[in-house]
Parts: sequence; structure tokens; C-alpha cells
Amino acid sequence: MKIQELAQLIEGTVEGNNSTDVWGLSGAETAKAGDLTFAVDEERLTSAEHSNASCVLTGIAVRKSTKPIIRVKNPKLSFLIIYNMFNAPKGREAFVHPSATVSDKARLGKNVWIGSGVRVEEGVVIGDDVIMESNSVIKKNCEVGSFCHIYPNVTLYENTKLRKNVILHSGVVVGSDGFGYVKDKGKIYKFPQLGKVVIEDDVEIGSNTTIDRGSLSDTVIGAGTKIDNLCQIAHNVKIGKNVLMAAQCGISGSTCIGNDVTMGGQAGIVDNVTIGDNVIIGAKSAVIGNVENGAVIWGIPARPIVQTKRQMAVLSWLTKNFKSIKR
Amino acid sequence: MKIQELAQLIEGTVEGNNSTDVWGLSGAETAKAGDLTFAVDEERLTSAEHSNASCVLTGIAVRKSTKPIIRVKNPKLSFLIIYNMFNAPKGREAFVHPSATVSDKARLGKNVWIGSGVRVEEGVVIGDDVIMESNSVIKKNCEVGSFCHIYPNVTLYENTKLRKNVILHSGVVVGSDGFGYVKDKGKIYKFPQLGKVVIEDDVEIGSNTTIDRGSLSDTVIGAGTKIDNLCQIAHNVKIGKNVLMAAQCGISGSTCIGNDVTMGGQAGIVDNVTIGDNVIIGAKSAVIGNVENGAVIWGIPARPIVQTKRQMAVLSWLTKNFKSIKR
Amino acid sequence: MKIQELAQLIEGTVEGNNSTDVWGLSGAETAKAGDLTFAVDEERLTSAEHSNASCVLTGIAVRKSTKPIIRVKNPKLSFLIIYNMFNAPKGREAFVHPSATVSDKARLGKNVWIGSGVRVEEGVVIGDDVIMESNSVIKKNCEVGSFCHIYPNVTLYENTKLRKNVILHSGVVVGSDGFGYVKDKGKIYKFPQLGKVVIEDDVEIGSNTTIDRGSLSDTVIGAGTKIDNLCQIAHNVKIGKNVLMAAQCGISGSTCIGNDVTMGGQAGIVDNVTIGDNVIIGAKSAVIGNVENGAVIWGIPARPIVQTKRQMAVLSWLTKNFKSIKR
Repeated sequence: MKIQELAQLIEGTVEGNNSTDVWGLSGAETAKAGDLTFAVDEERLTSAEHSNASCVLTGIAVRKSTKPIIRVKNPKLSFLIIYNMFNAPKGREAFVHPSATVSDKARLGKNVWIGSGVRVEEGVVIGDDVIMESNSVIKKNCEVGSFCHIYPNVTLYENTKLRKNVILHSGVVVGSDGFGYVKDKGKIYKFPQLGKVVIEDDVEIGSNTTIDRGSLSDTVIGAGTKIDNLCQIAHNVKIGKNVLMAAQCGISGSTCIGNDVTMGGQAGIVDNVTIGDNVIIGAKSAVIGNVENGAVIWGIPARPIVQTKRQMAVLSWLTKNFKSIKR
Repeated sequence: MKIQELAQLIEGTVEGNNSTDVWGLSGAETAKAGDLTFAVDEERLTSAEHSNASCVLTGIAVRKSTKPIIRVKNPKLSFLIIYNMFNAPKGREAFVHPSATVSDKARLGKNVWIGSGVRVEEGVVIGDDVIMESNSVIKKNCEVGSFCHIYPNVTLYENTKLRKNVILHSGVVVGSDGFGYVKDKGKIYKFPQLGKVVIEDDVEIGSNTTIDRGSLSDTVIGAGTKIDNLCQIAHNVKIGKNVLMAAQCGISGSTCIGNDVTMGGQAGIVDNVTIGDNVIIGAKSAVIGNVENGAVIWGIPARPIVQTKRQMAVLSWLTKNFKSIKR
Repeated sequence: MKIQELAQLIEGTVEGNNSTDVWGLSGAETAKAGDLTFAVDEERLTSAEHSNASCVLTGIAVRKSTKPIIRVKNPKLSFLIIYNMFNAPKGREAFVHPSATVSDKARLGKNVWIGSGVRVEEGVVIGDDVIMESNSVIKKNCEVGSFCHIYPNVTLYENTKLRKNVILHSGVVVGSDGFGYVKDKGKIYKFPQLGKVVIEDDVEIGSNTTIDRGSLSDTVIGAGTKIDNLCQIAHNVKIGKNVLMAAQCGISGSTCIGNDVTMGGQAGIVDNVTIGDNVIIGAKSAVIGNVENGAVIWGIPARPIVQTKRQMAVLSWLTKNFKSIKR
């Protein structure tokens, strides 16, 4: 494809030879002749110029280049759009591997692909165009919406509901019992975990993340939310829409998280609190109370980031001047 | 059932219409007419009154209600007792799925239920009434005691011993090699991990938690202990009885934890230390030394919680008054 | 074997009865008569003397003993060498379990052992003497080098490359999509994850650890590196050689770690930074910038350990003397 044609598709403008041919997409590091790459800033533009790429997607304000470039508002987004144009997900045909165990009391939609060793128990309802890879286990009465993709070795406990276009990476466990016990006279009794997990449209969940079923209500993950690897979502948690949660975060029981929240890696939130919309929580924070809409917090315990940074600066100053303070 | 009859079973007293019929149990949020729910305090009693529940279990000191109530000492415990009365675990009949691989050198007790794709290797001994769900793998010479429940996709390495009534949730790995190496002249050699893991009666382990085998001694989890999801128990660790460990905790090698210890989420303990009985460790703490019986600790590093809180208050005050201090 | 003969094999010197017979190896705790054990210091030598062991491996500078001893420079290393002499890994014969699903477009080396329920997709190339245990899944075009050992329930996504002698423990996921999204007008779009994961020779990866594929470049784990359980390695991360990473660490996207780095448990490193060679990072640290060769750092945020400890001491002193400071 000529870069002039590509530029039109993404509403960009070409500088340099606009009849350059583009054959593929790649990062600067691995680009071959004929590849289009992208550069979000001038430093990366320099890297791209040193690569074998034939053309570079870059931003409006970035300097001129020695290579042909296409200027767009958001080069990363445009790169993604081009990628998706040429890599439309291929429909798989209906297929059930002979080693899979599918209950005759389960209902399968059209074009469902079921890999080796998969187990689908009774009462399960699977929508159209679903992929369920090897050795995953879908227990009784689960629902898996259209276009869901379940990678290998995933487990869904009873009654889990996945809406449409949910991606679960390998090792994810959804619907296991929450950590609920009652102590009486030195003994610990397991409290019933009767709720379920509902995962709404367009959610993606990273490898080996665990999401517990509710005890008496449900655990809910809102539409468009993306959760990274090795996160823990406890029972009765409600997570809003379009939340981004980095790896190894932990959310304790019955906590509610608003929409468009962003969490850095290894952050934790205590139980029974409410986090507003548009909150940003820094990596490794320990959130121990409610958080207002739009707050940007960090620290152990988490406070407004300005305050945490000021405390750190004060402690540094005090340490540096400790001798004179001591006097 | 009439609530009067229910009240007698749990030694409670009825207020309001004692011939109210109860058909089911649920949380206030999801209660239907005919359901019994519970309220541990007055705030929750108000929620329960606004629900469709027909009757509320509540405590001795809680106010009167507009709904029929049963008063008991511990409403959560009584709710659990009623639940268990009406939901006795059903015995499963002996069953081995044809796709399971059970060694003819393994010994199975009565009423063992083995799901699809399960592997049971030679020398394994399984007690009565055990459930082993799909795609779990039990390696050589493991022992699985009566009434254990192993959820899908669990792995037990060689020689792991589960006593009675142990619950392992999906993705749990027990008995993998500990992180033991010897460095010599810039190279790293794997040290033999020859011990095993012993898990005593009534232990429950959350999804994707990992427990390593001992190197030269055993890793031991004491009776009645409950471990949440995504925890890491290193080689040679000994955990006492009735310990509650929240999600994402990590215990380093050869550390000993006493009885009745409680750990908040994401806490960590260094190697080779001893934690006494009845210790409470706050969430996200880093425990870097021995801890006495009954201590309540928090922080990074963990100290008596009063001390950690005082340090935080002092730092806040100093930050607030920094200008005058600087002068 | 006589201890005199053993001593010669490891260049040690015998004290006490040099014709003592040794039949086995074990830790002091579990030693039986006839066993050789080891003691790295005098405290452990006392334990060893109270054990049933017949002989003790110990260091050059340790005191004399009531038991026959063999003195060597590094008793732990010598113990390991003896262990390996008598426990050479046994070759397994070529074997494919009938319930495994091996594509006829996969290529298998000599003496490959494939357990029940394993899936090997098309284009996979497996070297000699590889063991792949039950229910593991190897997706398209992966390469698994000679002498690799893949434990049960592991997943390798497409194109993952394992060089020689790599050990992956149960529940490990290699090659899942990185956490890469582009936000535009309130919606979140998945960015393509086109790179792969390369794991070099002699790497060992602990249970339930997750390693994401690169987005536009590769994720690389250097030769000899050992990663403990439940760690998270994000997309595009490059880890050097002979790194030791304890459990529950998290490395964010595109970060580079040098050679011979040691990380304590639950430490985290932000994205896009460079950690030099021979760096030591204390447990639970939050590394938020580049780190020079040889640095020893600790804390949240991580600083040179001396500085972090000094700050802690200053804060303790200020708290203790708070009343007089306030005046």
C-alpha cells in the first residue's frame, strides 16, 4: 500500500515521498524495509530514523524527518487503527475437540471453538463466536457471551456470567469462594459464598488473576475495564467501567471502585470503602479509606500525591540537617 | 419453616409475628419475600428493613425492628449454622471420568469423585468422599485425606500430604521446588529440595496460591488455617493452627508462624523469623524480625501499630509546620 | 561410602573416624544414622551434633566437633555436589500419553516425554530429553530447547522460545498479552502485542509466575536467571543473566535489568527504567528510577539502603523527642 493511501485512512498528512510502499507494521527495534513504525516523540523519531523502517507515523508537533512520515494527532492510536484494519480477527469455524467434555445440557451458539481437554458442565450457555482453549473448565450454569476468548487453563466456577467480548488469559480463576469466615470459641467456620461474578462487555483479565464470587451479593467488573496479571478481586467488590488496574493489585471485600479509575501496580485497597470516578492511585499505594472523585493519591497509607511527596521531602531535609536539629 | 422453630434451633428469641414462614436465606441486597437475612448492626438492620426479606437475624443489643426479628448473640454465626443445616454437603457417588488417568498403583477410598482430565500418579493414596475436579494433577506418592475437595486445575507435586477436609481452590500449586540456590564463581546452582508439604485438617487454600516443598525439612500448614488467594508460602515454613492469611501475603523461607495469627493482605515476612501466637499483622506490612505473642504490628518495617501511627502523626505535624521548623 | 572417599571427591579434610560409612544425605532435622548432613555455622553444627547424622560437612573456620566432620570451603555447595553425584537426572524414554494432543506439524526431538492431556500445537519444535507434564499447553510455533522440564498446567502462548535446560513450574504462563491500551475519547483500545518471549539457557521460573510477550519488541529473560513464584514480568522487559528474583516481585513494561541483580520479595520496579549490574534491591522496595551498577537500595521509594535506614532512625528519634520538639 502507498503511504498516501494509508494517510487518508487515518486522516494524516504525508511528508516526504508519498508513493513509498508499506508492507507491514512493527516497532523501530525490529523494523524491516517496507515497514511502517511510529514515534510518539522526537527521541523515538531518532530511533525510528536509525531503523530499517520505510515510513514513520508521528505527531503534529514533532520535527521534520529524514524518512517519509505521516503526521496524525495520536500516532499510537493511528498505528492501532491500521493494525486492526489489516488484522481483522478471523472467524473460527464451529469445532469441538474430541477430548473435550461438553455436557449435553449445555447450549452452544454458532461458531464456537472448543479446544482439547476443555470441560463444559450442565446448564452452561455459550454465545456465538466464542473461543475456549485447551484444558479450561467451565462449571455449572455459567454464561459466556458472544466473542469471548478464554485462553488455556482458565477456571470459571458455577454461575459465573461473562457478557460479550470478554478476554480471560491463562490461569485466570473466576468465581472461587471469597475469604469469609466466622470465628467462634477459637474455631473458624466457613461462611457461605452464595453470590456470583458478573463480568461485563469488553473486559480483559490478565494471566493468573483471581476474582472471587460474592458472599451474599455479586462481584461485578464493569464494561471496558482492563485488569492486568496476578490481581486479586475479593468477594462483593464492584468495579466500574473503563478501569485500568496494573499487575498485582489487590481489592479487599465489598469495596466499590468508580468509573475510569487507574491503579498502578501492587496497590491495595482495604475492604468496605468507596473509590470515586477518575481517581488515580499510584503504584504500591495502600488505600485505607474512601476516595473522592478525581483524586490523585499515592503512599502507604495513600494520601493526595502532593502531600505524600511533601512528607518525603520534609523527611529528607530533616535527615540531612539532623545534627543541627538534634542540638 | 416458622421463625419460631428456627429461633429454637439457634437459641434465639423472636420479636414480631412468630409464625412468619421462612423459605430461604440471603443477603439484604438480594432478599426475596420469604427469605431470612441478617444484620450485625443498626445500619445494616435499616438496610434489611428496606429489603424484601421476611425476617432478620440480629444481635442482642440492636434496636427493635419493623420486621419480625430473631435475636441471637452472634447473628453471622447463627446465619451460618442455619445455612449448614439446610445445605449439608451431598455425598457424591464413586465416579472416575473416562478421560481421567488414574494409575493402577494408586489407592482410592470410597465415594471418590474424579473429574475429566485429572491425573493421579502411582503411589497416590486417596481417602473416602474426596472430590477431585477437572484437569487437576496429583503426582507420585501424594496422600489426599477424607473429605478433601480439590477444585479444577490444581497441581500437587510428589509426596504432598493433605490431611482431612482440606479445600484447595483452582490454580493452587502445592509442593513445587523452593527458591534455593548456591552461588559459586558467578554461577548459580540449584540446591536440592527434598522435603515435602504437609497440610493438616480443615485447611482452605485460595486460588492460585503457591506452597513450596521443604528443602531438607517439610513445609507445614497447621489445622484450621485459612489462606486466601495468590499467597506465597516458601520452603520450610511452618504455619500454626487457625491462622487467617489474607490475599497476596508472602512468607519467606524457614519462617515459623504461631497459632491464631491474623495477617492483612499483601503483608510479607522475611525468612528465618518466628511469629508468636495471636499476633495481628496489618495489611501491607513488612515484618523483618521475630514477633512476640499477642503483638499487633503494622508498617514497613512492621512495628507495634501504636508506634507506626505515632510516627505517621509526627511526620504529618512536621510537614505542616515545616516553615517554622526550618527557621 | 567411607567419608574419607567422599572427602576426596569434594577436596575436603576429615576429622574424626574417617572410615565412617555414609548412606544418605539429609538436613539435621530429619537425619538418620548413616546420613551426612551439613552445618554452615557453629549454631547449626550444634544442631547437627544433636541429630542422628553420622557425619557433618562444615566450613574451614568452624570449631571441632563431637561427630566426624568433613571440612570444606563452602559446605552448602559441597553438599549439593555430593547430592548431584548420586542423583544424576535419569533419562526418560520417549513417551506420548494417548490423551495428549500433539499436532502432526510439530517436531519432537529424542527422548521427549509428554504427559496426559498435554497439547502441542502446529509448528512447535521440541528438543531432546524434554519433559512436558500433564495438562500443559504449548501453542503454535513455540520452541522448547533440550532438557527443558515443563511441570503440569503450564501455558506457553504462540512463538515463545525456551532455550536449553529451562524449568517452568506449575501454573506458569509465558507469552500472554501485555497490558497495553490506548485511550481515546473515553474508550480503551487494546494495542497489538506482537512480540514474543525468549527465555535463555538454565532459567528456572517458579509456580504461577506470569511473563508477558513484548508489544513491538521481545521480552527476554537472560541465561541462568532464577525467578521465584508469583512474579510478574511485563511486556518488553529485558532481564540479564544470573538474576535472582524472590517471590511476588513485579517488573513493569520495557524496564531493563542488568546481570547478577538480586531482588527481595514483593519488590516492584516502574516501567522504562534501567537497573545496572550487581544491584541488590531489598524486599518490598518500590524502584522508581534508574539504578547504577552495584547499588544496594531499599525502601518506598527505593534509595541507597544507608539513606533509607538513616531516615527511619531520624523519624524514630523525632517521634521519641516529639514533645520537646513541639515546644
